[in-house]
Amino acid sequence: MYKIKVSYAPSVRRLPSYLLIARQAFEHGDEFLSGTVIANELSLEPIQVRKDLSITGIVGKPKRGYPVEALVKAIESYLNWDQEVKAVVIGTGNLGSALIGFPGFKKHGLNIVAGFDADAKKTGAKVYGVPVYPITDLSSRLPQLGVTTAVLTVPSEFAQMVTDQLVSCGVKALWNFTNVKVKAPEDVVVQNEDLSSGYAMLSIKNRLRHERLD
Amino acid sequence: MYKIKVSYAPSVRRLPSYLLIARQAFEHGDEFLSGTVIANELSLEPIQVRKDLSITGIVGKPKRGYPVEALVKAIESYLNWDQEVKAVVIGTGNLGSALIGFPGFKKHGLNIVAGFDADAKKTGAKVYGVPVYPITDLSSRLPQLGVTTAVLTVPSEFAQMVTDQLVSCGVKALWNFTNVKVKAPEDVVVQNEDLSSGYAMLSIKNRLRHERLD
Repeated sequence: MYKIKVSYAPSVRRLPSYLLIARQAFEHGDEFLSGTVIANELSLEPIQVRKDLSITGIVGKPKRGYPVEALVKAIESYLNWDQEVKAVVIGTGNLGSALIGFPGFKKHGLNIVAGFDADAKKTGAKVYGVPVYPITDLSSRLPQLGVTTAVLTVPSEFAQMVTDQLVSCGVKALWNFTNVKVKAPEDVVVQNEDLSSGYAMLSIKNRLRHERLD
Repeated sequence: MYKIKVSYAPSVRRLPSYLLIARQAFEHGDEFLSGTVIANELSLEPIQVRKDLSITGIVGKPKRGYPVEALVKAIESYLNWDQEVKAVVIGTGNLGSALIGFPGFKKHGLNIVAGFDADAKKTGAKVYGVPVYPITDLSSRLPQLGVTTAVLTVPSEFAQMVTDQLVSCGVKALWNFTNVKVKAPEDVVVQNEDLSSGYAMLSIKNRLRHERLD
């Protein structure tokens, strides 16, 4: 399993927010963007922003901040978002469909080229213009599509079975939205996305709010 | 804005995974669960698991591990997940509908009691048994429902306007799935959920995989 230094993960998670702000500044025609402005926008400490951005290799200028165009490119290059990644979504229920239609992904180089579903009522149709194929076509279609990245939004009970299938079809990167910690070979990258994690954060913040009021 | 210590956030984000494993052990009738078993299951270091769990106040026994029932209760209690929180989902498109139907939330005490949408074609119907009302009914319905938590899945351009409305209706906790960093008063808790964050993690892991192969 490929792990990144655990201490890096929160910084990596914040990079997309920085990128969004940097792109807005670029579209606005700004030449420089200060870490303090980014920090204020995101309710973070300026030192945190500078530390996070340093992992991309970008260097700011004293008193002026980061050169905007270079900042956008540094984040994109660090995340490999300057290159197109073709992906498929397995399971085109509400969540899968939402991900296919998510407007942000294309800007990050993520191009979802097909969906797959076990439900014959969903296959043959298009979701946001993306074709949905029967899941039984995985082994024939994936190599043909040249895809090695898959987004998993199937019901939990099928998560491991579908993962095994995807791996056997050459998938090397799996973005897993099920709550099953699927097992995959060492050379396959898995990112587990747990919607409950965000709710845990909201819950803690809410609890702190109540404690302050008490 | 209520902030938790930044260093705590990754631990809090992992608690739901620990809770899932602890609940499975409980259902399986296990009396103790070791940090090492949890660590193996989640591909984490045992010391990380013990550090994370320590924030809940749970204490393990040498060589035996954590008492399972107490562990479940400690995590639930720390997150306030042993108490019901009623919430509404604003915007019942694919993502909003997926969140309404997400099976995990009920287990965390999160009870989504209604959806709201601006699209008359969506209102009046039910999503996973949950009624969807016109967004114009917010101010009359929210106090009546006794809800102070809202999940925001509207198109980005409406995010701030809807946030202002929710705040004026008494919402105190906002789980924001739009990519707009909405502004809210100091006494309102906001958790920004950015699907791009997870993709940034997958991208970095994938990049490291490629670099190892090169």
